[in-house]
Amino acid sequence: MTKRQVYLEDIPLDQAWRRFIAAMESAGKWAAFPGEAVPLDEALGRVTAKPMWAALSSPGYHASAMDGYAVRSADTLGATETVPVRLKLNEQARYVDTGDPLPAWADAVIMIEHTQLIGDQAIEIQASVAPWTSVRPMGEDMVATELVLPANHTLKPVDLGALAGCGHATVNVRRKPRVAIIPTGTELVTVEQVNRDGFKSGDIIEYNSLVLAAQVREWGGEPTRFPTVADDYERIKATVLEAAATHDLVLVNAGSSAGSEDFTARIVEELGTLLVHGVAVRPGHPVILGVVERRASDLRSPTSDLRTPIIGVPGYPVSCALTGEIFVEPILSRWLGLPAREKPKLEATITRKLLSPMGEDEWVRVTVGRVGERIVAAPLSRGAGVITSLVRADGIVRIPRFSEGVDAGQSVMVELYRDLSEIERTIVHIGSHDLCLDLLAQFLADAGRRLTSANAGSLGGLVALRRGEAHLAGSHLLDPQTGEYNVSYVKQYLPNTPVVLVTFVHREQGLIVAPGNPKGIRGLADLARPDVRYVNRQRGAGTRILLDYRLGQLGIMPDQVRGYQREEYTHLAVAVAVQSGVADCGLGIAAAARALKLDFIPLEQERYDLVIPRVHYESELLRPLLDLIRGPDFRRAVAELPGYDATHMGEARDA
Amino acid sequence: MTKRQVYLEDIPLDQAWRRFIAAMESAGKWAAFPGEAVPLDEALGRVTAKPMWAALSSPGYHASAMDGYAVRSADTLGATETVPVRLKLNEQARYVDTGDPLPAWADAVIMIEHTQLIGDQAIEIQASVAPWTSVRPMGEDMVATELVLPANHTLKPVDLGALAGCGHATVNVRRKPRVAIIPTGTELVTVEQVNRDGFKSGDIIEYNSLVLAAQVREWGGEPTRFPTVADDYERIKATVLEAAATHDLVLVNAGSSAGSEDFTARIVEELGTLLVHGVAVRPGHPVILGVVERRASDLRSPTSDLRTPIIGVPGYPVSCALTGEIFVEPILSRWLGLPAREKPKLEATITRKLLSPMGEDEWVRVTVGRVGERIVAAPLSRGAGVITSLVRADGIVRIPRFSEGVDAGQSVMVELYRDLSEIERTIVHIGSHDLCLDLLAQFLADAGRRLTSANAGSLGGLVALRRGEAHLAGSHLLDPQTGEYNVSYVKQYLPNTPVVLVTFVHREQGLIVAPGNPKGIRGLADLARPDVRYVNRQRGAGTRILLDYRLGQLGIMPDQVRGYQREEYTHLAVAVAVQSGVADCGLGIAAAARALKLDFIPLEQERYDLVIPRVHYESELLRPLLDLIRGPDFRRAVAELPGYDATHMGEARDA
Repeated sequence: MTKRQVYLEDIPLDQAWRRFIAAMESAGKWAAFPGEAVPLDEALGRVTAKPMWAALSSPGYHASAMDGYAVRSADTLGATETVPVRLKLNEQARYVDTGDPLPAWADAVIMIEHTQLIGDQAIEIQASVAPWTSVRPMGEDMVATELVLPANHTLKPVDLGALAGCGHATVNVRRKPRVAIIPTGTELVTVEQVNRDGFKSGDIIEYNSLVLAAQVREWGGEPTRFPTVADDYERIKATVLEAAATHDLVLVNAGSSAGSEDFTARIVEELGTLLVHGVAVRPGHPVILGVVERRASDLRSPTSDLRTPIIGVPGYPVSCALTGEIFVEPILSRWLGLPAREKPKLEATITRKLLSPMGEDEWVRVTVGRVGERIVAAPLSRGAGVITSLVRADGIVRIPRFSEGVDAGQSVMVELYRDLSEIERTIVHIGSHDLCLDLLAQFLADAGRRLTSANAGSLGGLVALRRGEAHLAGSHLLDPQTGEYNVSYVKQYLPNTPVVLVTFVHREQGLIVAPGNPKGIRGLADLARPDVRYVNRQRGAGTRILLDYRLGQLGIMPDQVRGYQREEYTHLAVAVAVQSGVADCGLGIAAAARALKLDFIPLEQERYDLVIPRVHYESELLRPLLDLIRGPDFRRAVAELPGYDATHMGEARDA
Repeated sequence: MTKRQVYLEDIPLDQAWRRFIAAMESAGKWAAFPGEAVPLDEALGRVTAKPMWAALSSPGYHASAMDGYAVRSADTLGATETVPVRLKLNEQARYVDTGDPLPAWADAVIMIEHTQLIGDQAIEIQASVAPWTSVRPMGEDMVATELVLPANHTLKPVDLGALAGCGHATVNVRRKPRVAIIPTGTELVTVEQVNRDGFKSGDIIEYNSLVLAAQVREWGGEPTRFPTVADDYERIKATVLEAAATHDLVLVNAGSSAGSEDFTARIVEELGTLLVHGVAVRPGHPVILGVVERRASDLRSPTSDLRTPIIGVPGYPVSCALTGEIFVEPILSRWLGLPAREKPKLEATITRKLLSPMGEDEWVRVTVGRVGERIVAAPLSRGAGVITSLVRADGIVRIPRFSEGVDAGQSVMVELYRDLSEIERTIVHIGSHDLCLDLLAQFLADAGRRLTSANAGSLGGLVALRRGEAHLAGSHLLDPQTGEYNVSYVKQYLPNTPVVLVTFVHREQGLIVAPGNPKGIRGLADLARPDVRYVNRQRGAGTRILLDYRLGQLGIMPDQVRGYQREEYTHLAVAVAVQSGVADCGLGIAAAARALKLDFIPLEQERYDLVIPRVHYESELLRPLLDLIRGPDFRRAVAELPGYDATHMGEARDA
């Protein structure tokens, strides 16, 4: 096997897509699938392949719409309260239940409540009835031969009822597209293996096939997850060929880039036509589009020529999931006879500047919330490996390539992953990170609210409040002058906004160190030691401000602290840096150290407030949050966490 | 068994609902269900029962983000194009693929493209790298112990990936609520029976259980459809008891009213507590709410006391389906830990006056479309037996009881069954009924448009166009003065609107008669015969205007025509009246007679136009419609129908 340098192309999305469709068209693979008859009780959510015409009329006869007596309307003429009319049973009046057929001689029904039984031979009525009163005429609902449902219609519960009602026991629906999903990569392990054997450095848990399979299922297809294939050209090739022979679409996950073990492009080339290798989108650039082609005579069990579209799906989880949305979904919809799914769109104000992605269209994941009158969209991590950015995303903002990017405060179009109603019950937090916010999110979920939380540091949160981008900001900013928390900062950053400071927790700050404290660190003075590697928090974080303040008191300059430049955005990230041995210590909260089973050197207790503009403080939206932090259950849960004191939780002061 | 008069109550919906919830609360049945562990690849769409915290960090180590060389950033200092730096392989630089762990001594990765291999011992670089360049730090995505998903969260594809990625092979999701669905009624047959044995007068095809089961499935529950139980008190009681012992909720379909064979209320009373019998909603009034209660000691296989909520669901199909939406859905959502589903809401202009429903809240089914700048909602049949009114409905308008109703042109709030995007691609037709419109709807579905059609007659259509409620109106109005169709009417009804008349079809009008024409009818003159029963079309219909015109020519007065008062709204309904023997003849189109295998006496050929305001005629929305009627495929399909001439289809003239 010779190594060969492959370069990724940079084909614009629309162009790549057109090329792919043209190839599928010429392969006869760009048409809606034929139908198959399925019983009605298995047809929910399937798509009709043909128009469905009524086989029977419904009702199939003139039916009584009431419990009462079938009569000839002509016989009732003249009946009044004073001059009742008597009708002979069976000849002039016959009892019918709702739904019963009318006797051939009758043309109306009188409700039983409006009749009086006279002996057992007659009824008496005190009002006449018009012809066809209380009768459901034959065909009222559906007339045989009438169109009941068009083709390409996704079946809802009532549709199934209508089909049965007009005489259909089955419905002709489009066959489910069969999609093969082939994970490749020697380094991949299953989560079951990890649970059994433990996690080893270098292990990558394979879950892209799980995500792709769930997407395919959600979009109406039938996925097959193949077992992972190691990075072996011949084995991958054999698997692709087998999959192509038995599926409508093949997805090969990873190996789609240009590295030494990225075989997919060459395999597609060998087995058929490589149409596109590299699309100008981010995340998702190293996408492969092609068609596997084999003449019937070359196949082991030949039926007809094989022409199966194939997509090389990039390995980074976000790239993989977005490739599903961008390429796989429209193909499945086409095959099912549906228009491509469109996400609901919403205009929003973006909270951070986004640079132009230059040569690639970029899909930026955002959280979305309504703050006052504005809908705000806050960008999440842009990393292609950060699947949680998709988990947390409320929507996607597309930044076109070669555009000028967008500035903070600019209006953008968001394609929503969630219903608007979910957005409307979302509380937006931007500010300092605290583990109790996760716990609060959980309690809020039970109370019908969603909490989204962006870790921007204490100062970042105050800035976000000033810009009207959040409902509240967690903050623990020590004013060295007064020893007081937050008040002076709020006055400085939000001079014209009435604000309520609600105490959330008191918590222990200290140095997070490896178990057993191998470097013998005792306090911040040790940060000046040349053998101690520190991991820092980002500028604007309350913890960073605390550090800088204490270092100043100790007369230690930043450049004396090894690792001062390495910034992390959360307490847990600092703890991870210590856990992984990258750093010897970092300033953070006790709970983060405890969570990762690290040691902790307590230094001081600080107050962590929720800073809430009064307009939000008094809103219906935030009420459940305030109820929670003033009620017993959440407080108890927080008090059980190491390093937290919930005594003053919920106390409010104006600022 | 003694007969007993039961009267339905009229309990307001909110009050009925509160009573039911209170009873479920006290029975311990108004809480979210506990969880069960399911493998991730079966968990799509399920709801988390617990918060899910990361079990492992992801990545689980510092991982290379690129294919390249792991280096110590300190070793790269000073490298420039003119002064490259050479790094010794394995000691200072080690090759890593994307995803590989960094060696413990390394803190950055240099992309392979930015390196040059020097012999097989070293690489050369022309730029320095900062620490942590091209590295995905351990925990970048998720840190062990971090919250990944809250409880009460519906699992999406990417969520499954995130759970696997942080070490979970299963997820704790809420058990699916088990719902028993018991159809009752001696008159019920299955559609399979009808297909096998043929349809008999009095047969009612049971499909409510199909609809309820599909609803339950759609809302996350697990339905059990019981076989139909005949109207037998003891058998129904035994079935209810069996179902209550093995399900979370029991739905008994029909028997919920107050007739002689309506047993449900008494059975609920005997087996537990009857809470509500009759709710002030329409359709859906005869709803029963109750709880089946049995002490453990009274049960055959006692485990614990039995307390199972039960709903008596009304028998009319629309009442049944709406009872599902109003009562069953919120219970299932509650048990799954979800907020009750809310349909998206949209303000629209109602096209017809709706009278106040007096003592009952009314759920009116409507079609919805955007005509110009306005969203219009057109009420569908209000009959509780007309399931197609729900099939065709785009949404629901609630008219509160004791309100003043709504006037035509008034603004109403529509709860939508469809996405807004579907509404936006809907072409609204109001006007004369023609069978080819069904065919057109079918062709349009393939072209990405939806056609909704309300049969208001030719004049009704012109009025709708004047009010801005439709995009087009089918019309076949003969002007006796000129012998010309439509032109003079359009001038009269739409004097200030530029309008295009597009010929749709020419079609045969004539008398629809029973097979063999038993009454020997030869023409309209026979309508004056006392032994001939006629079935008429509604006022404003082109066919009615034609009839009245020809009767006038013949000197026949309306009161000479037996059945002149009986009005139907479509050609097919007229044909059904003849088929069922209610009438001997009716004026209508050949295709309707042929569809029901009736005989037809042709009288004249008429032109049926599509009347289209120019603003819609030129819109993007209608383009596919005009393309279709001017293309060969649709024309060919129409020409194949009996009684149609498509020669002039698509010809346009201004009016």
